[in-house]
Amino acid sequence: MQKFKHIFIMINDFVYNIPVKVYFGKDQMKNLVPELKKYGNRVLMTYGGGSIKKIGLYDKVVKAIKDAGMELFELSGIEPNPRIDSVRKGAQMCKEHNIDVLLAVGGGSTIDATKFMAAGACVDHDPWDFLDLSKRSPIVKALPIVTILTLSATGSEMDQGGVISNPETKDKIGRLSPEMLPKASFLDPTNTFTVSPYQTACGAADMLSHIFEVYFNNNLDLYMLDCFMEGMMKTIIKYAPIAMREPDNYEARANLMWTSSWAINGFIDGGKRQPWSCHPIEHEVSAIYDITHGLGLAIITPRWMEYCLDDTTVDKFVQFGVNVFGIDAKLPKMEIAHKAIDALKDFLFNTLKLKRTFPEVGIDETNFAIMAKKSVNGGTLNGFKPLQQKDVEKIFEMCMK
Amino acid sequence: MQKFKHIFIMINDFVYNIPVKVYFGKDQMKNLVPELKKYGNRVLMTYGGGSIKKIGLYDKVVKAIKDAGMELFELSGIEPNPRIDSVRKGAQMCKEHNIDVLLAVGGGSTIDATKFMAAGACVDHDPWDFLDLSKRSPIVKALPIVTILTLSATGSEMDQGGVISNPETKDKIGRLSPEMLPKASFLDPTNTFTVSPYQTACGAADMLSHIFEVYFNNNLDLYMLDCFMEGMMKTIIKYAPIAMREPDNYEARANLMWTSSWAINGFIDGGKRQPWSCHPIEHEVSAIYDITHGLGLAIITPRWMEYCLDDTTVDKFVQFGVNVFGIDAKLPKMEIAHKAIDALKDFLFNTLKLKRTFPEVGIDETNFAIMAKKSVNGGTLNGFKPLQQKDVEKIFEMCMK
Repeated sequence: MQKFKHIFIMINDFVYNIPVKVYFGKDQMKNLVPELKKYGNRVLMTYGGGSIKKIGLYDKVVKAIKDAGMELFELSGIEPNPRIDSVRKGAQMCKEHNIDVLLAVGGGSTIDATKFMAAGACVDHDPWDFLDLSKRSPIVKALPIVTILTLSATGSEMDQGGVISNPETKDKIGRLSPEMLPKASFLDPTNTFTVSPYQTACGAADMLSHIFEVYFNNNLDLYMLDCFMEGMMKTIIKYAPIAMREPDNYEARANLMWTSSWAINGFIDGGKRQPWSCHPIEHEVSAIYDITHGLGLAIITPRWMEYCLDDTTVDKFVQFGVNVFGIDAKLPKMEIAHKAIDALKDFLFNTLKLKRTFPEVGIDETNFAIMAKKSVNGGTLNGFKPLQQKDVEKIFEMCMK
Repeated sequence: MQKFKHIFIMINDFVYNIPVKVYFGKDQMKNLVPELKKYGNRVLMTYGGGSIKKIGLYDKVVKAIKDAGMELFELSGIEPNPRIDSVRKGAQMCKEHNIDVLLAVGGGSTIDATKFMAAGACVDHDPWDFLDLSKRSPIVKALPIVTILTLSATGSEMDQGGVISNPETKDKIGRLSPEMLPKASFLDPTNTFTVSPYQTACGAADMLSHIFEVYFNNNLDLYMLDCFMEGMMKTIIKYAPIAMREPDNYEARANLMWTSSWAINGFIDGGKRQPWSCHPIEHEVSAIYDITHGLGLAIITPRWMEYCLDDTTVDKFVQFGVNVFGIDAKLPKMEIAHKAIDALKDFLFNTLKLKRTFPEVGIDETNFAIMAKKSVNGGTLNGFKPLQQKDVEKIFEMCMK
């Protein structure tokens, strides 16, 4: 073989494998029954509150399934920040009724819970054992899942993961498994027309955070993926305010919807291996206070950025500021970095009108120590900037004003 | 249902379905045999000239397959601009030797030809019937295909299509089928270290053209996808010159490799339906003159852009110039557009050092009429700007100097 210098920069190897089929657009319901029928005749439909009934989606889905002569079972009432009890109930129903396929109709909470029902249906033990950090029972099988998305935020419709809360233990824990990847997802932007401005804003903050967790990373990776991430950030910044003002703007809802899936389906990760930061921190907050995940992230993220910013990390903030917010690249680096964080704050708190501090959402210092300790799992969270309990406590203090 | 204004801008519905598994990186060969074994024990390995032997890839692959006790058959000599005779030979071998899985080791030509061998193995008729415009025999089945990519350009490793030449009829025709999608592709950037500066440049021009064909489009679509396309263009413009200067620059080769797949795997298409322009035109040129596809595209594309540029199309050129080449957005629109096309020419002909005109590659006026007529299929090519025979002839004339 010809001799080369072999300049190997540290881009890790990776496997790309996202076989989820996505039906995107406003006239795709005709494909629902054929997709479900691939897996059998007995469907468990899962959903949250009544919103899918208000928008007429419930009636459409039920009619399509019943007209096709399929057997339909229902589990409603899945909570935002879904709870292990709902998962237990769903897994039990799958076993009792010999379910062939689960159909999750809703946002990330419904889809997350449905993933663990599908896995729980295939084992004899309590589904919490999949999540419990002392057990982490293997997920080797799950019933097939099809989703109809009604909220652009978590990306659960195209990824392997889910997060479940356990109010008894005050835990909120996530887990990934390829077995839980939906077989097909239906993304109709019109199904998000009734999402409130507040929930639209929280969804935007959540998506942005998914991208930040990968973008602000010390693993050197493909420039191409950074470009994609910046494109998605610009898409969210452009369209979230439009969707808040004009809830039925198809272009805005469609851009947000497809971005929500790609922000977290694994594509942008490439070969990166570094743990996330703001998500584990926020999960401990919403495990106790039950605030909307996206809102918690919006409050924590800019403070985390300020805490991480130093001479070793400033370059990434410069790239972010110049490429996403169009800040003048000729300014001093540290100035660009601060301007970038300020621009993000302005977007989150002024444009999206999200609450800015912990006190505004009813959080005080009481649980700082325990939340901080849990978020670093009693040790160090080795993300973009390594964080220990005392660091997270300082970030929490920064969220007070 | 709550009443909305229902602003439906015309974003067409689409189905996203790219189940190709990609092993990306320099240490993935260990996964080759397990992937092949999913489909059986009898492998037909296809490749072109001797380049895979020179880089040691041939030996590695053969050893891995033989060590695993699998039966290996070989078909070499697949041409650049692959010919139907190679396809016929491969399909015949599949039938004779009861092949379970095809392993294409090479660039787009080898993979394209292998796709039609895999389909041809499942029918009794001549594989040319799949392509012949008067027949277009259905592709309902194909043997499974695995690829090992050695040239970043056509994207065949992650898409449904292939283009085959028939020297007897002077035809060069493409066809898509989900059946021909590879099951898995191995993308190791080090396998492209020996690609010459010239072939690297041709590959870059080909990738850019794949993106232009979708980007310059009258179908309104997702802004998010435009951002992705601009990111890929910037990636190619940044890294192709580096890969030409430093053939073993892993970062450059890796960025080009992953971009080549995403430029044409269908993701950026979203709901767009408009036919391509430069590819059908170039295919008629290289069907007669057998020049490298990417080189033909490099010569034709900027002239096609100049021919398309007018008051109705200028906005897209402005977006291209500002977002990709950083041209000052405050200049008059038409000036930005011309500057953008000039910047592209500078990149193709000065930076990539590709030949600039038809005469430089031995093409004269002789076949302009016949090539132009074939490229519009005797009527109108309804792309970004509708083109008839006389329009394509004018574009050809612009390629003369």
